[in-house]
Amino acid sequence: MIGIDWGTTSLRAYRLGAQGQVLARHDSADGILTIPPGGFPAVLQRVAGPWLAAGETEVLLCGMVGSRQGWAEAPYLPCPAGPAELAANLTELAFPGARLRLVPGLATRDAAGVPDVMRGEETKLLGLLAQGVAGLVCLPGTHSKWASLAGGRIQGFATHMTGELRAVLLGHSILGRLAQPGESPAAFARGVARSAQPGGLLHHAFGTRALGLHGELAEDETASYLSGLLIGHEIRAAWTPGQPVHLAAAATLAAPYAQALALLGIACTRHDDDVVTAGLAALATPQG
Amino acid sequence: MIGIDWGTTSLRAYRLGAQGQVLARHDSADGILTIPPGGFPAVLQRVAGPWLAAGETEVLLCGMVGSRQGWAEAPYLPCPAGPAELAANLTELAFPGARLRLVPGLATRDAAGVPDVMRGEETKLLGLLAQGVAGLVCLPGTHSKWASLAGGRIQGFATHMTGELRAVLLGHSILGRLAQPGESPAAFARGVARSAQPGGLLHHAFGTRALGLHGELAEDETASYLSGLLIGHEIRAAWTPGQPVHLAAAATLAAPYAQALALLGIACTRHDDDVVTAGLAALATPQG
Repeated sequence: MIGIDWGTTSLRAYRLGAQGQVLARHDSADGILTIPPGGFPAVLQRVAGPWLAAGETEVLLCGMVGSRQGWAEAPYLPCPAGPAELAANLTELAFPGARLRLVPGLATRDAAGVPDVMRGEETKLLGLLAQGVAGLVCLPGTHSKWASLAGGRIQGFATHMTGELRAVLLGHSILGRLAQPGESPAAFARGVARSAQPGGLLHHAFGTRALGLHGELAEDETASYLSGLLIGHEIRAAWTPGQPVHLAAAATLAAPYAQALALLGIACTRHDDDVVTAGLAALATPQG
Repeated sequence: MIGIDWGTTSLRAYRLGAQGQVLARHDSADGILTIPPGGFPAVLQRVAGPWLAAGETEVLLCGMVGSRQGWAEAPYLPCPAGPAELAANLTELAFPGARLRLVPGLATRDAAGVPDVMRGEETKLLGLLAQGVAGLVCLPGTHSKWASLAGGRIQGFATHMTGELRAVLLGHSILGRLAQPGESPAAFARGVARSAQPGGLLHHAFGTRALGLHGELAEDETASYLSGLLIGHEIRAAWTPGQPVHLAAAATLAAPYAQALALLGIACTRHDDDVVTAGLAALATPQG
């Protein structure tokens, strides 16, 4: 089968074997925001054409490709949901020579009734479920997802817009004016420690500037300090005390989260970002 | 005397009488960011020229005009500080025909030793002190200041970058894409209520989008909801339980803060934004 994690800014296509093993992979920058109206079939043909020509007939798409801005809208499925509910709610699209289906996103509501949504991450979570993972999962990113897995299903989740907030603060606020490129694990650790002190995020963020004006934070430490601050606030708000965290992300994104969790004394198990392939395989198999 | 509150994006000049009463006022958009190097004397001559020609010889400047990006840098004075300390630390600048002095900004450190800074707000706080105000003061704005006044001095303060965060989220993040202009007191109140629930600011902010996707927040309610959310988080982090809040701001800025304080059950006394003139007069008088 062919599985594609098709997001806002990138596309990852996999040719998968009968046991879900990756036979071939193709990454590109063809995120849905780059594709003109009606342009999705041509992009799919370009990235997966050779595999289709070689006889593949099953194609599963997950991610923002199933949003209002994507190829077609696949309605959100409510939590709790597991492989059975997701497999029963795939949206089939017309495509010559193959069965093409969209994985739905998930919706949830917290105790106060406020909704939350995900698209693409549900398939990674299915991959973790297929590997027997249960408990609290963190999928860091532009919009980090913290999900609760139990009874073989996704019980609920919460999104934290940590990565996007970091980007807009560095790109468009006064904090960015003092920032120069650089990586500093020590400044990151100071930011994480700051997140545990009183004052709140709106105050702590301004402190980045005050430290800079006082010469107590170098320009090339600013971005790392801000990352530690924001990730620290995210973890402190999202974490359930006593629970170890299952962290699934590519190495560059997982590293700061693993460091912050360690600094906060929270146990962490790391998983590969490519759990999405296990999720795609799990969804394709029942009907395959 | 002439007093000028000269900030990043605007300038407010006052001609003040012997008792600090406002004899004349001139507002302009000549913020320090609009002024080319060496251009400050010409702008001062333009806005205050008629008053100088009429015989004024004392000019006091407060605000970002005393920053590194301003006319000249007036070093930060440490807290606690009151009228005596500030008056003793004015920076005199050469200017033909008048004694021209800069009010220093203030610096403070919290219990963890992290610094904070203000420029311009110290003069408003002096104005409140001159009116006998003591206790917890909120000066809302792009960078809101929460200060503690006691014993006739400014004991310390904390900055919350609430206004700027609102602007960058609406202008540059995914939250802005769903937002249309509009004012909704009901949506503002929902945002304030949300700030009191678990989940943290990074999660609550993303909820603005999830509510929009679910049709539970209209596009023209988005900005008001986000304001309520951010101001609610600011107040909850900055407020000292049991303390009434002295709120000093122009009407358009004071109104949402007063509404949020009322929703959170916090007593509030409102003061005029022009307390800056009382502060300028208090600083000029000892030497005047």
